[in-house]
Amino acid sequence: SLRKMASFRGQKLEQVVQQLEGFAPISLAEKWDNVGLLIEPTSNKLVQRILLTNDLTEPVMGEALDKKVDLIISYHPPIFRPLTRITQSNWKERVVASCLLNSVALYSPHTAWDKVVGGVNDWLSKAVDIKGIKPLVPEAGAEPGTGSGRLVDTNMSIAQLVQDLQKHIEQSVHVAYAVEHHGNTQLRTVGICAGSGGSLLRGVQADVVITGEMSHHEILDFNHNGTTVLLCNHSNSERGYLKEFKTLLSDRLEGACELFISEKDKDPLQTL
Amino acid sequence: SLRKMASFRGQKLEQVVQQLEGFAPISLAEKWDNVGLLIEPTSNKLVQRILLTNDLTEPVMGEALDKKVDLIISYHPPIFRPLTRITQSNWKERVVASCLLNSVALYSPHTAWDKVVGGVNDWLSKAVDIKGIKPLVPEAGAEPGTGSGRLVDTNMSIAQLVQDLQKHIEQSVHVAYAVEHHGNTQLRTVGICAGSGGSLLRGVQADVVITGEMSHHEILDFNHNGTTVLLCNHSNSERGYLKEFKTLLSDRLEGACELFISEKDKDPLQTL
Amino acid sequence: SLRKMASFRGQKLEQVVQQLEGFAPISLAEKWDNVGLLIEPTSNKLVQRILLTNDLTEPVMGEALDKKVDLIISYHPPIFRPLTRITQSNWKERVVASCLLNSVALYSPHTAWDKVVGGVNDWLSKAVDIKGIKPLVPEAGAEPGTGSGRLVDTNMSIAQLVQDLQKHIEQSVHVAYAVEHHGNTQLRTVGICAGSGGSLLRGVQADVVITGEMSHHEILDFNHNGTTVLLCNHSNSERGYLKEFKTLLSDRLEGACELFISEKDKDPLQTL
Amino acid sequence: SLRKMASFRGQKLEQVVQQLEGFAPISLAEKWDNVGLLIEPTSNKLVQRILLTNDLTEPVMGEALDKKVDLIISYHPPIFRPLTRITQSNWKERVVASCLLNSVALYSPHTAWDKVVGGVNDWLSKAVDIKGIKPLVPEAGAEPGTGSGRLVDTNMSIAQLVQDLQKHIEQSVHVAYAVEHHGNTQLRTVGICAGSGGSLLRGVQADVVITGEMSHHEILDFNHNGTTVLLCNHSNSERGYLKEFKTLLSDRLEGACELFISEKDKDPLQTL
Amino acid sequence: SLRKMASFRGQKLEQVVQQLEGFAPISLAEKWDNVGLLIEPTSNKLVQRILLTNDLTEPVMGEALDKKVDLIISYHPPIFRPLTRITQSNWKERVVASCLLNSVALYSPHTAWDKVVGGVNDWLSKAVDIKGIKPLVPEAGAEPGTGSGRLVDTNMSIAQLVQDLQKHIEQSVHVAYAVEHHGNTQLRTVGICAGSGGSLLRGVQADVVITGEMSHHEILDFNHNGTTVLLCNHSNSERGYLKEFKTLLSDRLEGACELFISEKDKDPLQTL
Amino acid sequence: SLRKMASFRGQKLEQVVQQLEGFAPISLAEKWDNVGLLIEPTSNKLVQRILLTNDLTEPVMGEALDKKVDLIISYHPPIFRPLTRITQSNWKERVVASCLLNSVALYSPHTAWDKVVGGVNDWLSKAVDIKGIKPLVPEAGAEPGTGSGRLVDTNMSIAQLVQDLQKHIEQSVHVAYAVEHHGNTQLRTVGICAGSGGSLLRGVQADVVITGEMSHHEILDFNHNGTTVLLCNHSNSERGYLKEFKTLLSDRLEGACELFISEKDKDPLQTL
Repeated sequence: SLRKMASFRGQKLEQVVQQLEGFAPISLAEKWDNVGLLIEPTSNKLVQRILLTNDLTEPVMGEALDKKVDLIISYHPPIFRPLTRITQSNWKERVVASCLLNSVALYSPHTAWDKVVGGVNDWLSKAVDIKGIKPLVPEAGAEPGTGSGRLVDTNMSIAQLVQDLQKHIEQSVHVAYAVEHHGNTQLRTVGICAGSGGSLLRGVQADVVITGEMSHHEILDFNHNGTTVLLCNHSNSERGYLKEFKTLLSDRLEGACELFISEKDKDPLQTL
Repeated sequence: SLRKMASFRGQKLEQVVQQLEGFAPISLAEKWDNVGLLIEPTSNKLVQRILLTNDLTEPVMGEALDKKVDLIISYHPPIFRPLTRITQSNWKERVVASCLLNSVALYSPHTAWDKVVGGVNDWLSKAVDIKGIKPLVPEAGAEPGTGSGRLVDTNMSIAQLVQDLQKHIEQSVHVAYAVEHHGNTQLRTVGICAGSGGSLLRGVQADVVITGEMSHHEILDFNHNGTTVLLCNHSNSERGYLKEFKTLLSDRLEGACELFISEKDKDPLQTL
Repeated sequence: SLRKMASFRGQKLEQVVQQLEGFAPISLAEKWDNVGLLIEPTSNKLVQRILLTNDLTEPVMGEALDKKVDLIISYHPPIFRPLTRITQSNWKERVVASCLLNSVALYSPHTAWDKVVGGVNDWLSKAVDIKGIKPLVPEAGAEPGTGSGRLVDTNMSIAQLVQDLQKHIEQSVHVAYAVEHHGNTQLRTVGICAGSGGSLLRGVQADVVITGEMSHHEILDFNHNGTTVLLCNHSNSERGYLKEFKTLLSDRLEGACELFISEKDKDPLQTL
Repeated sequence: SLRKMASFRGQKLEQVVQQLEGFAPISLAEKWDNVGLLIEPTSNKLVQRILLTNDLTEPVMGEALDKKVDLIISYHPPIFRPLTRITQSNWKERVVASCLLNSVALYSPHTAWDKVVGGVNDWLSKAVDIKGIKPLVPEAGAEPGTGSGRLVDTNMSIAQLVQDLQKHIEQSVHVAYAVEHHGNTQLRTVGICAGSGGSLLRGVQADVVITGEMSHHEILDFNHNGTTVLLCNHSNSERGYLKEFKTLLSDRLEGACELFISEKDKDPLQTL
Repeated sequence: SLRKMASFRGQKLEQVVQQLEGFAPISLAEKWDNVGLLIEPTSNKLVQRILLTNDLTEPVMGEALDKKVDLIISYHPPIFRPLTRITQSNWKERVVASCLLNSVALYSPHTAWDKVVGGVNDWLSKAVDIKGIKPLVPEAGAEPGTGSGRLVDTNMSIAQLVQDLQKHIEQSVHVAYAVEHHGNTQLRTVGICAGSGGSLLRGVQADVVITGEMSHHEILDFNHNGTTVLLCNHSNSERGYLKEFKTLLSDRLEGACELFISEKDKDPLQTL
Repeated sequence: SLRKMASFRGQKLEQVVQQLEGFAPISLAEKWDNVGLLIEPTSNKLVQRILLTNDLTEPVMGEALDKKVDLIISYHPPIFRPLTRITQSNWKERVVASCLLNSVALYSPHTAWDKVVGGVNDWLSKAVDIKGIKPLVPEAGAEPGTGSGRLVDTNMSIAQLVQDLQKHIEQSVHVAYAVEHHGNTQLRTVGICAGSGGSLLRGVQADVVITGEMSHHEILDFNHNGTTVLLCNHSNSERGYLKEFKTLLSDRLEGACELFISEKDKDPLQTL
């Protein structure tokens, strides 16, 4: 309703970005990544309404326009391969054109959120009964606990972990047992990497690894090296974090903006 | 039993290889692939017993020794990244060492079987109600119908295709609907690529694509381009072909060898 | 005036683009170039007013908004280095954002116009008393006369050519005489390349070359190889063509759109 | 006259080179550059007469032979692209052959002179009313003030700077105003790079940059970033330094050699 | 005889390898090299008999089987270019297959032995009357004396050195005199590199260099730079070390294994 | 004597070069090679005396000056790695400087002579009892018989071939027998490559290969593949051709120039 929309005083885009980078500096992101403020339609833009999403698909873009938001925070960057033109012939160009045409700003944190303390990987780790936790690749010169992936110490069975993980992500889980493992195998260490963890987790010595997706040949390598693999589907290993982040951002903005989590955003895959 | 083992007269390895390449010449395989006779323990080896498998994992290797086979035909090549040593510290090196130590030969067809008429992709296509079929990338200078992937004309609903595919591969299927699609959407064209089809299928104009595995970002691209994606899990999109091939090879060898399909070979993933 | 603006019925952007490519197909452009429709704000856009410019600078962008044009045709592509973001921190990103925010389409022909018969190089050649003319690098499979650069046969003195060139481009000219040349030297052949001709003209055997800009070391090479160099400044070797093109496009569009040549567009350099 | 030629006692080439490198060590030069003693016709060569030039063109080579010099110091290295042969078919090979055939040595300082304190860039900076000066890229481990380019603090109008620059180089100047600049704009900082400054000056925050030559697209980038560009023509931004250097070298050699500045050396371009 | 074979109690392969790496750690080897345990047929292999060879040719492989050895130590690694298959069509693959089929392990030290104190280069240096010795390229962080090649101080004539070298390697020597050298030239420094020393020795200032083989154009460069070249043939510059190593290894293994030096291993070249 | 020197009328360098390229066009040479007229001190040079050599070493350069030759024809190009300077600090630069200072021209044919009919490889093949001969790599579009290397059909023993080869090159020969070969082995095919033949001869199926030099590991590969290797030393496999060429060139020049074969040119290696 108009009344409700009027009740948020808003913040300058520049200040919202400052809060976002205060939480997770873009200097944390991987070199190959494309993060931060990706679309800034005008100078001095005022932000009253913000939509949080994992992927900025066209249904989510439609929702953003319906909700009249001023800023979209999309975990995955909609511009990744650099653009040589912005036309109606390709969904990513259409999304970019639509943002600008409707004066909607766009911010993507991606691997900065993966590494930050209290970010995506720390959220995913909560599926495990944590006895100890540290990054797989600690970030030099950053706050302790910052870095890529997580290595968690625990003491639980595979069957229990699978059940807890299903509950945590509110989705089904795909399991590939190590050659000698079964449901009752007791675990001591769990490697964690939200998203597509095949290359980051390669060579990690852990009883189980949890990630979003991994190729067949990578799975066989883990299983023959004593490691059971749990897959959540790519975005199901990330999306649940948005709820935590909404609270966090709301606090940082001191209620100046209205925040929404997308209702259209979901993992594309369902198992039949 | 010894009596049964004695009843197959066997063939020279060289002649078995000749039959395998008579069916699917290794010149068909992709340039980056490593196919054909990969392990030949001695000259003039006699082959009486043959094991067929999709992946030569260590449980399958154990089965091969139990069954006292002379030759393993593994669809995926166990040697892919070239070897600088052959030790006990890595499962692929252990498998190679075990073959040689036990004088078991090894043959891998991989992409030669993907392209050949009557091969893996033709088998996978049988899940569809075929009105017409041709390769996605026809092989220059080869028998018509040869080439990478398949493009199938059909006339059925997505719901029906999913049901038929589940039945054909005898496994569950993962579905990602195109932005405008639903179960009742009527299909005209289906792109097929056994295994990991993301790069081959890129840019193909089809209502549905069927493959083994595909990354999240590739799926989103297909879904926004009007294409529903059906995933079987990598090896479930390939393994069912072994039954067809067993009959085919038995005919070519005129009963000289005893043929087995591995009982230990299965896709590592299960959905819980 | 509003009355006048209403008097042009307009054309669909798609059809204007069809006329532009009917004259100079984008397939003519160099592989490294970025040409054609670069910004398409919405589907089915109607074009009533069009601005022609050599360079889409910010003053020209301001003029476009003042003139309320629907389409800018900028000879040089404003997007050349691919974009990873579109913000207010860089003039090229600001121009792109401004086009989209104001729903202005953008088309750039660049090297397609350089090669086409009746394009930029044919226009620049008119400064010479032409006895014969052909492309420096003919385009395979295209209409005769199409290709990169021009080689013109003539019979005039250097002094006369300099005078005629000044008149043709309506600007001053920079001269670097070949080691043995002077004003009265009689010319037989002239190499032409609008813009920055150093690499295309390298090795061309001509008495004079005309281009927009060329580096010091390239000039010395020409001068020691018997070739006098005439420089117009980069955009002065191109801009005069817009007048010819305006007439040509007006005919093709049968008066459906109002056409303007930018009044703000000019070469940045002036000699004091 | 012969009498005059006999009056200089000369120095061993080795010692002259020692003085040249004592002033500007070749270790200062850029990695991609080719500097120092480039032609040494014989061991123990005696040097009585030296010619200084900016570019060793063929007219300058003729002058060197007329003046019977033993050593040419050419700011730009005549050998840059490495030689696979030395014949009469190319002007640079002819110059090299002529040096050796006539036993003339050749030395080129190039970027070592650009960086050294009291070198080419310090000379060019004298066109500005200097309130402060430092290198754009300081040279690690060298005397303070050494490095590539210069950044000068000043307080003068653009019009005044243009006038002073014309006087300093004794040549006309090409001006490209920043989008918001005009003749009366007051300047605080000036970036300096003798020769071709486009890549070194990229990204420098200055009100004006002075260099020899710069491409059209680079100029537009500076002008949109708040920087006016002044161009002198490549060699006119360098040549005036030879007068200063002649005095400097004469002192170092304590009058042992006769020094000439070339009368044939001049910038190839003139504006008509 | 069987009795003799029974008299060595043997060692676990793992422990033999530990002794080999205790003497010359594989971390010493060059990055491009392939050293260490290259073939390990089974876990927990027992080693009673060991064959030492410079090159593992097929005649040497035959000898290994005749002598029923459990481990071959071949200075040159038989697997260098990585293997994509192991068949009977190529001598290196046949050697690898034969090792595995017969359960013979294989270890290659190569450049680890070149660098270690008391290794191949120290052995070759003994041909010189040593007044002082140090590595050409010292190994950072290793025991003093470790590194690539050797530089030896001496005081002897070339004729004397040639005679001593012939005696030390028990083979003929090829001599290429420096431009100013002859048999009576007195030497002060000798560069040493067993094997193929052209690239390691390049630029070394020494009166003589000793190596196994060197190309014609490299020899001319040394001879014009004041350096006489002595060539032993590649493997003759290395093979004599095996005798020293046999004693050394026997001590380390405390007599647990029987050691042989190959009788079939010899340099392929003979001069007629 | 001066009288004799006066008795040759000479030829323009341009015409001598025309005769050299009439025999072996430089277009025959390999892409990586540097052949043809490498030093041309002046235009219109007259050539009365010519020195032929395999390698232009400094002793040979001294001989050229003593003999007052106008042109040196050196089979190997003295300029191979391109030159960035020409000083007294390096033997190849000293040779180039000396040629120019003394106005001596330089021509190198190298791989053009290797391929031409009647060139270096045809000369080396004469050591074999030739029953048939063809190039290893025929040159497309050239006279039959032109190309790289030679493959000779014959019928003789290895012992006989070694003896004939020693006689033909007037030098000793190095022999590496194939695994199954000995002196009495009867030969049918011989691969020939003057100079360094390792890469050209790789994979050639021949009973023997003859070349100048080859590395240890290449020799082992040939020996295990059924091929005996005969090495002559690099320049001894080439130098004998100069005698044939002297007659050939003398005829082409119709006695206009005096021709010498260097007396200082010899292979650097001698076996002791």
